[in-house]
Amino acid sequence: MSRHQLTESGQLKHFLTIEGLKRDLLTDIMDRAEQFSSISGRQVKKVPLLRGKTIMNLFFENSTRTRTTFELAAKRLSADVMNLNINTSATSKGESLLDTLHNLQAMHTDMFVVRHNQSGAAEFIAQHVAPHVSVINAGDGCHAHPTQAMLDMFTIRRHKGHFPDLRVAIVGDILHSRVARSQIQALSTLGVGEIRVIGPKTLLPADSQTLGVHVYHNMAAGLKDVDVIITLRLQFERMQGALIPSAQEYFANYGLTEDKLKFAKPDAIVMHPGPINRGVEIASAVADGPQSVILEQVTHGIAVRMAVMSMTLGSHSEQQEVNA
Amino acid sequence: MSRHQLTESGQLKHFLTIEGLKRDLLTDIMDRAEQFSSISGRQVKKVPLLRGKTIMNLFFENSTRTRTTFELAAKRLSADVMNLNINTSATSKGESLLDTLHNLQAMHTDMFVVRHNQSGAAEFIAQHVAPHVSVINAGDGCHAHPTQAMLDMFTIRRHKGHFPDLRVAIVGDILHSRVARSQIQALSTLGVGEIRVIGPKTLLPADSQTLGVHVYHNMAAGLKDVDVIITLRLQFERMQGALIPSAQEYFANYGLTEDKLKFAKPDAIVMHPGPINRGVEIASAVADGPQSVILEQVTHGIAVRMAVMSMTLGSHSEQQEVNA
Amino acid sequence: MSRHQLTESGQLKHFLTIEGLKRDLLTDIMDRAEQFSSISGRQVKKVPLLRGKTIMNLFFENSTRTRTTFELAAKRLSADVMNLNINTSATSKGESLLDTLHNLQAMHTDMFVVRHNQSGAAEFIAQHVAPHVSVINAGDGCHAHPTQAMLDMFTIRRHKGHFPDLRVAIVGDILHSRVARSQIQALSTLGVGEIRVIGPKTLLPADSQTLGVHVYHNMAAGLKDVDVIITLRLQFERMQGALIPSAQEYFANYGLTEDKLKFAKPDAIVMHPGPINRGVEIASAVADGPQSVILEQVTHGIAVRMAVMSMTLGSHSEQQEVNA
Repeated sequence: MSRHQLTESGQLKHFLTIEGLKRDLLTDIMDRAEQFSSISGRQVKKVPLLRGKTIMNLFFENSTRTRTTFELAAKRLSADVMNLNINTSATSKGESLLDTLHNLQAMHTDMFVVRHNQSGAAEFIAQHVAPHVSVINAGDGCHAHPTQAMLDMFTIRRHKGHFPDLRVAIVGDILHSRVARSQIQALSTLGVGEIRVIGPKTLLPADSQTLGVHVYHNMAAGLKDVDVIITLRLQFERMQGALIPSAQEYFANYGLTEDKLKFAKPDAIVMHPGPINRGVEIASAVADGPQSVILEQVTHGIAVRMAVMSMTLGSHSEQQEVNA
Repeated sequence: MSRHQLTESGQLKHFLTIEGLKRDLLTDIMDRAEQFSSISGRQVKKVPLLRGKTIMNLFFENSTRTRTTFELAAKRLSADVMNLNINTSATSKGESLLDTLHNLQAMHTDMFVVRHNQSGAAEFIAQHVAPHVSVINAGDGCHAHPTQAMLDMFTIRRHKGHFPDLRVAIVGDILHSRVARSQIQALSTLGVGEIRVIGPKTLLPADSQTLGVHVYHNMAAGLKDVDVIITLRLQFERMQGALIPSAQEYFANYGLTEDKLKFAKPDAIVMHPGPINRGVEIASAVADGPQSVILEQVTHGIAVRMAVMSMTLGSHSEQQEVNA
Repeated sequence: MSRHQLTESGQLKHFLTIEGLKRDLLTDIMDRAEQFSSISGRQVKKVPLLRGKTIMNLFFENSTRTRTTFELAAKRLSADVMNLNINTSATSKGESLLDTLHNLQAMHTDMFVVRHNQSGAAEFIAQHVAPHVSVINAGDGCHAHPTQAMLDMFTIRRHKGHFPDLRVAIVGDILHSRVARSQIQALSTLGVGEIRVIGPKTLLPADSQTLGVHVYHNMAAGLKDVDVIITLRLQFERMQGALIPSAQEYFANYGLTEDKLKFAKPDAIVMHPGPINRGVEIASAVADGPQSVILEQVTHGIAVRMAVMSMTLGSHSEQQEVNA
């Protein structure tokens, strides 16, 4: 849990993790995203809310897709946005992360969007920025990916409405997935009726039980009567050692096929954070099928990021107004 | 010919190839470019025409110069523009081109500007985007480069006026040049009096005759009395095998020197799509001489791209208005 | 001295070097920066002064930090800004620097910000651009870095006021430092009471005396009673041969520690152009201490660059108005 992401009056100042956030706040994010979602369908998809603000995308780990969603969200809020690929720049001159950060901050930067392959990096940065700066975690190691989790919640709410009535199954590599970790926290906070995780023992964390989830090693049982199926990307690059025998065998056991999909409720929706490995986590017929909402997730990702950006930066104005 | 680039009412929806477009449409593009051309001379070189639109430059083949012209055109139309170098990003995670495309499209993208080293790539993408998305071909393999051709037509019209009165010679590597292919189609459609291609047999396509052009292997004969000389870049990187003996020998035979220029009409203009290989396709004295309009082509390129961008995106609004 | 950077009426047209500029002009830059500095603290840090202008960052030498400051300054002036990393693009197709430049200029570019590892590059480019284009030197070889010098002057003026009353010491690698060269010129022009350089003989230029500075090889003597200490970055990458025995020995002799800082006046300020090598040029206790203004320099860098950009581009409007 981060003690740093809320102001004293409970406003969202940074967005580092879902852990410790109240249900009302998650609902606020979704309500705000709902407003931005309607803007995206307009002829002019732009609002002047963050005009004159400076947002820097600090990507220590390369991810064009995620960077693009944040860059787009910032531009649609009329902010000035700068992309900095940190590996290849400042630190190559031997400067420390904190010195780089303090320098960029001194340029009157209002927000850092941080992606890093080390867990805790965004939290660390949030602890060291000046009071006027917000930090958004765009994925840190195996720890958290809170904007991804919130766009997933938004997508679920759009299709299924009331969270307490739902059974949600997350399938795959829970152990290495910052996405899964944040999703489970968000689903719990929103009071989802039942959260299940499905996967081989090697890909489930040892403390699954304590996460408040039900553990399944078998798709037939795990998917039975669920409303939402979230498939995860196999993070080959983060697996150390041979945790799965082969992609083929993984697909045979845990890949979401049309046959396995039948275990779920007939109107269950199918989600994936992308990019998908077709024929590994999910069959093309399902990914492109009528129950898939995978591309809607991408669309909602922009609205949710606009919501989080405007709320965190708005928390400063409110503080200033209070202080004034 | 592309069946995909026009709406049912004949508006330009995508811009993939010159082939199959009517003379009136090419004239419309030039007329519209004329309007944008006057804007570029103003103190404020910007119009709000595409404010709130999202344009993505998808460059699968590196070309800073061409990307820059599209980025500038988009910014001067007040669009939000994103540059994505695709080789180094999404596809490195093993995602398919179509999955990448569908993801980017799901972010409420309005236009893809596509550069690819495979012929047909832009057409393929245009076939798979949603109805609200326009695709502009910024060069695909040896196939087409229609915005380059239209900026060339615009430059010719500016200097020479009425197309049917003109004799135009294209010199060089016609075989590997998407630029030449698009130019010949545009010149034909605009009713140019005579189109000539000049080059060694190894660099002319076997079907030159069927293109409706006159073929010359000799500069003296080919340049005689022409109004416009278009020199092409030797595409060393696209030549497989030794099609020309050496750059020196090529220059001796086909390089445009002041002496050879005298074969043309005294007021003939000299063009080149850039970047030029000085002393290979063209002598510096000619490239920098009074008959050269090479840098004007660059200037007009911005106006023509603004025209094509606003027309293709405008076709959707017209559809929406019709549907409303 | 550049004969090219002033218009006939003495306005700043390019900004290539401090050498040859009059005191009034340097004061104008600082006064203008003062205005922009107040903007940066506002909720909306943006003015429409350069709306519709096109600024291209031409970086032949990689420097994310410096590029970022110019990009930010341009965006806060509402200009359209393009980043071109030249090494990896146009010149890879064998095009000459001048051809690249003329092409980019033909796109109705208003300003080039140039960073190059060869001394004189910005001056060379300024000699070859069209009259409507301004060039700003963002660092050329060992020659000059005038915007860095002016942000340093601005920072000194903010803290110390009247230049003639001051004693300023520059410590370190004067020989390879374009920053030091520009600083000394600016300090001289502004009439600083006494300019000192401190460093080992191998890092001081042979003509130190003729620069109008006092030379010290010892920190105790050199720092005695100074008001301003400017530490320089050790440019390992520009040193040919072993000019210093080791970083440790350099730090022992010339690194600014709390102990050595006591030689200066009690209210002396400590500056560094960044990025700092902690424990080489400066001790962390000093860099992060109460007398350090290093991060203020970064902040002021944006305002100073906004000032120079608006003044150089403004010089054209004035010319146009005169001509109209």
